[in-house]
Amino acid sequence: MAVGPAHLPTLLVLDADPLPRLGRLTGRVRVLHTDEASLAARLPEADVLLVWDFTSRAVRAAWPGAGPRPGWVHTASAGVDHLLCPELTASGTVVTNARGIFEEPIAEYVAALVLAMAKDLPRTWESQRQGEWRHREGARVAGTRAVVVGSGPIGRAIARTLKALGVTAAVVGRVPRTGIHGPQDLDRLLARADWVIAAAPLTDATRGMFDTRRFGVMQPSARFVNVGRGPLVDEDALVRALERRWIAGAALDVLTEEPLPPDSPLWRVPGLLISPHMSGDTVGRWDELGAQFVDLFERWAAGRPLKNVVDKERGYVPGH
Amino acid sequence: MAVGPAHLPTLLVLDADPLPRLGRLTGRVRVLHTDEASLAARLPEADVLLVWDFTSRAVRAAWPGAGPRPGWVHTASAGVDHLLCPELTASGTVVTNARGIFEEPIAEYVAALVLAMAKDLPRTWESQRQGEWRHREGARVAGTRAVVVGSGPIGRAIARTLKALGVTAAVVGRVPRTGIHGPQDLDRLLARADWVIAAAPLTDATRGMFDTRRFGVMQPSARFVNVGRGPLVDEDALVRALERRWIAGAALDVLTEEPLPPDSPLWRVPGLLISPHMSGDTVGRWDELGAQFVDLFERWAAGRPLKNVVDKERGYVPGH
Repeated sequence: MAVGPAHLPTLLVLDADPLPRLGRLTGRVRVLHTDEASLAARLPEADVLLVWDFTSRAVRAAWPGAGPRPGWVHTASAGVDHLLCPELTASGTVVTNARGIFEEPIAEYVAALVLAMAKDLPRTWESQRQGEWRHREGARVAGTRAVVVGSGPIGRAIARTLKALGVTAAVVGRVPRTGIHGPQDLDRLLARADWVIAAAPLTDATRGMFDTRRFGVMQPSARFVNVGRGPLVDEDALVRALERRWIAGAALDVLTEEPLPPDSPLWRVPGLLISPHMSGDTVGRWDELGAQFVDLFERWAAGRPLKNVVDKERGYVPGH
Repeated sequence: MAVGPAHLPTLLVLDADPLPRLGRLTGRVRVLHTDEASLAARLPEADVLLVWDFTSRAVRAAWPGAGPRPGWVHTASAGVDHLLCPELTASGTVVTNARGIFEEPIAEYVAALVLAMAKDLPRTWESQRQGEWRHREGARVAGTRAVVVGSGPIGRAIARTLKALGVTAAVVGRVPRTGIHGPQDLDRLLARADWVIAAAPLTDATRGMFDTRRFGVMQPSARFVNVGRGPLVDEDALVRALERRWIAGAALDVLTEEPLPPDSPLWRVPGLLISPHMSGDTVGRWDELGAQFVDLFERWAAGRPLKNVVDKERGYVPGH
């Protein structure tokens, strides 16, 4: 079969820095680049949309416009809440995500936060800044109990890593299955947990699930970590829970508003650690994300089934 | 055998807060308490000396004095460098330490430091203090290489915990044995290490071993952690190595001068994390240390062999 330029599929890339290295696809695809502002105008030309700037919410805004739409959208992220809108969900467009890239980095990041809070490193470095030698006792991590909310590959990787440190880690998912608790076990597990880790996708069922009632169920010694999506947490309820010492501390790597504005009071809540949505972002990941897309593209071009296909109704890739 | 008060052995305790809970020994031992100032005067009365204040160097000062000396000295610490002086080493007095209490807490602390440095948590919390959302990329920990200097139970626990996080960890000891490298491998291992962990006892052979030459052997991306004893490190050489970017960072939990004085320039060296000798100190450890001493005392009182007996020439408990 002769393939001329006119027959090449069009790949539209919603750009971020650095640009994706498409390597093997050179000459086999017509690549268009776009920023957020031009996305809506370019969308009708695209066979495939690569959401390389996975912090952008522009796809949700551009999708309901007129014209044909790409048959496949891939996002270089685990979460897809920034993409899905009713029109995309109802369409025949396939959505895939970056499952497989972020799991282990995020699990390490959670382990870093858990150990740092157990050993009180934030206060140690605050004392260092003031030139003060303030000896304290840390807590053991081995033998403590964690509950990980989110039974996808990220939540399961977090549980594996915590178990390697001697933590008893329970995973809670949407439906119970082998080794995974269902929602009906959540409150009972929260009430005994030393660590509560939020690693669920953002869906209608999970939005705001960490609210006043759930923080009230936790132990005064419990610490809460969110590496899922900001809106899983009612941030006002979390601040009150910290102020009232319902829980002992919290770390948010994701927030309802990102970037968190400089004047947000959240920066200065005692006992609250903030990091800039970086738990999954490690040196070298852009190369991994690019190689993953190239592999998926070759499947798509060959008419083979895609992997990492998102269930658009549920808002995540189902199954193991 | 009738045992009256006159026949009770005398236990002298160099006090620290909280006092040891001697539980089962009540009525079976005459307990005298002392502070550093009275130690020399009280020492001749003691059959057993419990160095409960393991930060004190008073035993080294008091030992060469006149009069009989206790036949057994136990320290509630892993290191014994604060006790050993030529007179004690030459004497028939048995010295025991707290082997078994600090290993796992120190291993967790090292894991906390390694993960915190990989994920750049110190800078993240500095940005939080300034209300700045500064996204960066962290490093993976799995797949990196560590060399742990010190093949006692603490060094081996550190290696085990790092391995659980996917780190390739080599242990270097005084003599090679199964799974332990000898000193002749040290420079070669240092040259390839991402993490260099000092966890050796302080002896004539280890004092100042981390010097200009050894920091020069390390990779520019390497990070150095000391949880052994401060004088293992030439601190001036470490500061120069950080300033010249011979290595990427360091964390000292132990220092040549403790507490580190408020006006020490070490507090403010860029890339250097300081913590107040707390890596092994966890909630509940006083109870564990007290129970361990009670067990050893019962062995001693029954004429059975002690455990955790220090080789006073070498300066640590030999063997596995």
